[in-house]
Amino acid sequence: MADSSTSMRLRLPLLCIILEVILIILFGTLVEYDHDTHAKLWNENRTSTRKDYENEFYYRYPSFQDVHVMIFVGFGFLMTFLQRYGFSSVGFNFLIAAFSLQWATLMQGFFHGMHHGKIHVGVESMINADFCTGAVLISFGAVLGKTSPVQLLVMAIFEVTLFAVNEFILLSIIGANDAGGSMTIHTFGAYFGLVVTRVLYRPNLNKSQHRNSSVYQSDLFAMIGTIYLWMFWPSFNSAITHHGDPQHRTAMNTYYSLAACTLSTFAFSALVNPEGKLDMVHIQNAALAGGVAVGTAGEMMLTPFGSMIVGFLAGTISVLGYKYLTPVLESKLKIQDTCGIHNLHGMPGILGAVVGAVTASLASPDVYGNGLQRVFGDVETGKWKPESKGGFQAISLAITLGMALFGGLVTGFILKLPIYGAPPDTHCFEDGLYWEVPGEEEGHSELHEVATPNEVEKLSS
Amino acid sequence: MADSSTSMRLRLPLLCIILEVILIILFGTLVEYDHDTHAKLWNENRTSTRKDYENEFYYRYPSFQDVHVMIFVGFGFLMTFLQRYGFSSVGFNFLIAAFSLQWATLMQGFFHGMHHGKIHVGVESMINADFCTGAVLISFGAVLGKTSPVQLLVMAIFEVTLFAVNEFILLSIIGANDAGGSMTIHTFGAYFGLVVTRVLYRPNLNKSQHRNSSVYQSDLFAMIGTIYLWMFWPSFNSAITHHGDPQHRTAMNTYYSLAACTLSTFAFSALVNPEGKLDMVHIQNAALAGGVAVGTAGEMMLTPFGSMIVGFLAGTISVLGYKYLTPVLESKLKIQDTCGIHNLHGMPGILGAVVGAVTASLASPDVYGNGLQRVFGDVETGKWKPESKGGFQAISLAITLGMALFGGLVTGFILKLPIYGAPPDTHCFEDGLYWEVPGEEEGHSELHEVATPNEVEKLSS
Amino acid sequence: MADSSTSMRLRLPLLCIILEVILIILFGTLVEYDHDTHAKLWNENRTSTRKDYENEFYYRYPSFQDVHVMIFVGFGFLMTFLQRYGFSSVGFNFLIAAFSLQWATLMQGFFHGMHHGKIHVGVESMINADFCTGAVLISFGAVLGKTSPVQLLVMAIFEVTLFAVNEFILLSIIGANDAGGSMTIHTFGAYFGLVVTRVLYRPNLNKSQHRNSSVYQSDLFAMIGTIYLWMFWPSFNSAITHHGDPQHRTAMNTYYSLAACTLSTFAFSALVNPEGKLDMVHIQNAALAGGVAVGTAGEMMLTPFGSMIVGFLAGTISVLGYKYLTPVLESKLKIQDTCGIHNLHGMPGILGAVVGAVTASLASPDVYGNGLQRVFGDVETGKWKPESKGGFQAISLAITLGMALFGGLVTGFILKLPIYGAPPDTHCFEDGLYWEVPGEEEGHSELHEVATPNEVEKLSS
Repeated sequence: MADSSTSMRLRLPLLCIILEVILIILFGTLVEYDHDTHAKLWNENRTSTRKDYENEFYYRYPSFQDVHVMIFVGFGFLMTFLQRYGFSSVGFNFLIAAFSLQWATLMQGFFHGMHHGKIHVGVESMINADFCTGAVLISFGAVLGKTSPVQLLVMAIFEVTLFAVNEFILLSIIGANDAGGSMTIHTFGAYFGLVVTRVLYRPNLNKSQHRNSSVYQSDLFAMIGTIYLWMFWPSFNSAITHHGDPQHRTAMNTYYSLAACTLSTFAFSALVNPEGKLDMVHIQNAALAGGVAVGTAGEMMLTPFGSMIVGFLAGTISVLGYKYLTPVLESKLKIQDTCGIHNLHGMPGILGAVVGAVTASLASPDVYGNGLQRVFGDVETGKWKPESKGGFQAISLAITLGMALFGGLVTGFILKLPIYGAPPDTHCFEDGLYWEVPGEEEGHSELHEVATPNEVEKLSS
Repeated sequence: MADSSTSMRLRLPLLCIILEVILIILFGTLVEYDHDTHAKLWNENRTSTRKDYENEFYYRYPSFQDVHVMIFVGFGFLMTFLQRYGFSSVGFNFLIAAFSLQWATLMQGFFHGMHHGKIHVGVESMINADFCTGAVLISFGAVLGKTSPVQLLVMAIFEVTLFAVNEFILLSIIGANDAGGSMTIHTFGAYFGLVVTRVLYRPNLNKSQHRNSSVYQSDLFAMIGTIYLWMFWPSFNSAITHHGDPQHRTAMNTYYSLAACTLSTFAFSALVNPEGKLDMVHIQNAALAGGVAVGTAGEMMLTPFGSMIVGFLAGTISVLGYKYLTPVLESKLKIQDTCGIHNLHGMPGILGAVVGAVTASLASPDVYGNGLQRVFGDVETGKWKPESKGGFQAISLAITLGMALFGGLVTGFILKLPIYGAPPDTHCFEDGLYWEVPGEEEGHSELHEVATPNEVEKLSS
Repeated sequence: MADSSTSMRLRLPLLCIILEVILIILFGTLVEYDHDTHAKLWNENRTSTRKDYENEFYYRYPSFQDVHVMIFVGFGFLMTFLQRYGFSSVGFNFLIAAFSLQWATLMQGFFHGMHHGKIHVGVESMINADFCTGAVLISFGAVLGKTSPVQLLVMAIFEVTLFAVNEFILLSIIGANDAGGSMTIHTFGAYFGLVVTRVLYRPNLNKSQHRNSSVYQSDLFAMIGTIYLWMFWPSFNSAITHHGDPQHRTAMNTYYSLAACTLSTFAFSALVNPEGKLDMVHIQNAALAGGVAVGTAGEMMLTPFGSMIVGFLAGTISVLGYKYLTPVLESKLKIQDTCGIHNLHGMPGILGAVVGAVTASLASPDVYGNGLQRVFGDVETGKWKPESKGGFQAISLAITLGMALFGGLVTGFILKLPIYGAPPDTHCFEDGLYWEVPGEEEGHSELHEVATPNEVEKLSS
């Protein structure tokens, strides 16, 4: 598994520069301002049509910024729980997110945003690109501490591409509902990452096991990530729903789901511990499952009542997953899931897909009135009936699972090539391999072992 | 004071699950989407009435998210200043806030939001629920480190209920102004909590005194909380004022009050120290008093000038309170106020109520023009005259104080029962009692004493 | 350089109180609510004119809050990278920002906001005041660790004043474009600060050199600042552009510039390190240069393509500056630039000015249509032609540099007076001089040397 050298001296700069140059060229040839960001288009006969306050910016930019915080602070700090991997958690998260959002703009634009051969961009494409990035960061959670930044960028290239294909099939071809991405983001990102980490299985990972845990301060840093994800999840799920009531309703449904989820998380975290002590791993992760689980149905008339039931269930299965399923996945299926993404994104994502299918199949003009079309555009046009809608939602879940498993498998084998400077088994979960790491405090500058690439070469040979 | 066992194994799960099940049942029977979140209602003749951009969501959701950040990050991290209580500060804050906002939705809806037997919810009810939660978290500050999570949930049940009653009396019966909650939130939460901690007085708390202080890193974590509270307080005070000029004006008044407050806080913090050194306790807390003190008058024509005077005074009395009053409260009145909420919320809350009463009594159509009704709905209708308005504001303060003292007394005695797993005097301010706590760093996993429930039983018997 | 006493006992309180009293008096005599915050003005014939949702609050307040977060959390925590200067970084940032925003409101209002002898305030003046504060905090970065809070406040008095003059010349007299402040904020703040730190040169600063570096945790705290600055920079650059398409377009251009900048930062950080290891200093700072560099051109039709090229260049020159230029500036030019503001704000600011001049000179009705006036008001009125517009942008840069160098020189010599309690060379980068600093953990309360003012007097005599 270990490469002969872990130096990023040439590999990382080369990859970053080549990727960015390609991105810039493609943006130069393919990308254009959309109607709401273009000086000419927006102001053409503007007075007779839309006012400035109707610019998409004012409907969506606050939501976009909340999503942006989730991607960079939320995911980034959530993963700082490891004692010696804080720089990498926040830093690599930063790098692959910055790359992914550019690449996603192109891929998503290519599949479902072309206008006369050009990709139109605005705040909606920015949100969608951040969403796609979220899926990559979920997968990152599975391989956290065991991959080089070059591997992560390569993973992002493939995952973003496949994400866009899957999203295109679900939203544009099947016409499924998935505004908050229970399927497209969470289920896809989770199972893609789980297969990748399975392929990259390290039988001797126990050599780094002493670093694969938290310390007091690192758990507090991780709580910054958790709380931001929790608070802004209502913005995430509602960011690209229809204006007006759907955006409002989605945010509120998510808010209630998360609140109920938090109570079940605390309850089961104490219950499964012999001494009744709470476990930070559960609080940091399972309390968020309620947001994942209403990612599809949140925009529907799920009601606060329904949202709370879903949230309560999501927190419960997530805690139980961390306690009982994760160890089995590792020992039996050889899936080393550093952050437990199966519990936070995998199972709650599937739950969310099922809840979405059921809620969609119950939709009717009696309940939604003239608002039916705003949620289920295709139902209104008579293309499908409510009862078949649920079935198509279920099919969408199956397709997503298939795409994720297939994509993860291929990507995993590509990442197995010994050319990316992957860390040796002895130096996983360790910032010192890829970062200049300062000492803990004055006079203790060598407190922690920090391997130089030369040492690593010796160790891993 | 100490219970025979502090294990949360059964107590916490049982309480959380029972509470959440009750909440879900009550939400199922009582709660409905309001006009702006309901697919059918919003889209009924919508084109002829309100446009999507007039949905309440766009007026209030950004403010809601800022308030949400204050509740979960602001309060949560502000309390992490204790060296060994970071998990509990952020974690219990998270738990009781998630519970309180659900319970508050029901209680506030019951008292002032019923429509044909149903509680209507939307972004405004979400903000109000977060506000009520804020009062509970203020009280939490007084008992921080000395209570079990079960005690805190029980406290929240009673405090939320009484908060809703008091709010109903003030806003609906008396018709008082209190948009930012100087009275309903800060004064109520502070005096409620102070009475609770008085009833729970621990004469032997000095056994845990060595843990009742900060360390370097914990003070920095606390500053995250402080700065977020400070920055978003303008959103807090303006979140539920009338659309347009009142929301805009309130945010600005609060901004100026806080800026002035910060300067007086730094000034007096240095002045009261023999060596002229600044004290983190003051900066973390007193600099926020300016937001509390314009919680009532902020929406009025207080002017930036008036706001700055109020803010300057608030910072001054708050620092002086920390320096001179808190020690006296503890030694003479046996009030052990961990976070000094009397200085941050108590006195500034009363100041805010008085400023509100004076500013209200000076209100006139000359100053407010047609905008008078937007701030003082009842004045406009001739129900009361400006001069009596000030009196009713003062009465509201008296009622709030009475409700808080009475409620805190009853709740305190309920919390005194030895059935909640309260920490023994020797293990206050210690995460290890209720949390799985990791070591500080590799090789030092047992750096801090962590008591198991069994040991605690022995110690406290 | 060192003063005979560093006690802040009287100096700081006196200065703070005098300043705040002056501010309050000036606000009382000069400042009034603007049309959108005034109860009477907003509601005068309101129904026939503007609706509540057209209140400036809803266009700008979310952007304001993002800017506010950048000023207080972004700048504050970015500077916590020093191992023993976290209290001062966040705390002094807090103090001088709270002062500067009040003073800036007056100075900016005096120069370009007077209406019949009164300064009108609202959300736009709040954003502008925060912008001006940003320049002061940039300069703070150069002198970080080597100045007393009294010196910083004195610096702020002068810098804010000169900032307002320069801004008035650029925006009101010349009619330059600089919505995101590449010139007015970044170039001005950087060169002002660099000259100040040059004048305050300390030949014996190496006595404190062991404290002039980071530790593991302090680098993580600094990343909180970095990430918030990075995420909200789109809001910063778009906060005061014209409503509608310019605000939308500016945010998006900045988003792409920053994404590209992040990739070049990681690339060159690894490339310039002999072992290929990433350096936190680069990631924390250079990744932000992309926001600085589109501060002028961001509102123009720069296109995502152009934005990415600019961002890529900005990250590159910033990393190279940290690696190769900063050591030369210190050894040859005696410029001790603690945070490397020349690399983050200086050079990228100039780049941004140049990009702005070029982009402005290419503006044409063909590209902008009716939107031309919204970006280049003066071009539309025929006052200047596009080709001369570029020249005036270049002249604006020259003026800004001149003002910054002159102002920094004068301010530097004023700050050299031995009356402000500046730290001795032996106690730079040390919180203990101005703060009550707790120990690291229980039982280690004297882990770090903390000098009392008396000791300092002895040491520096």
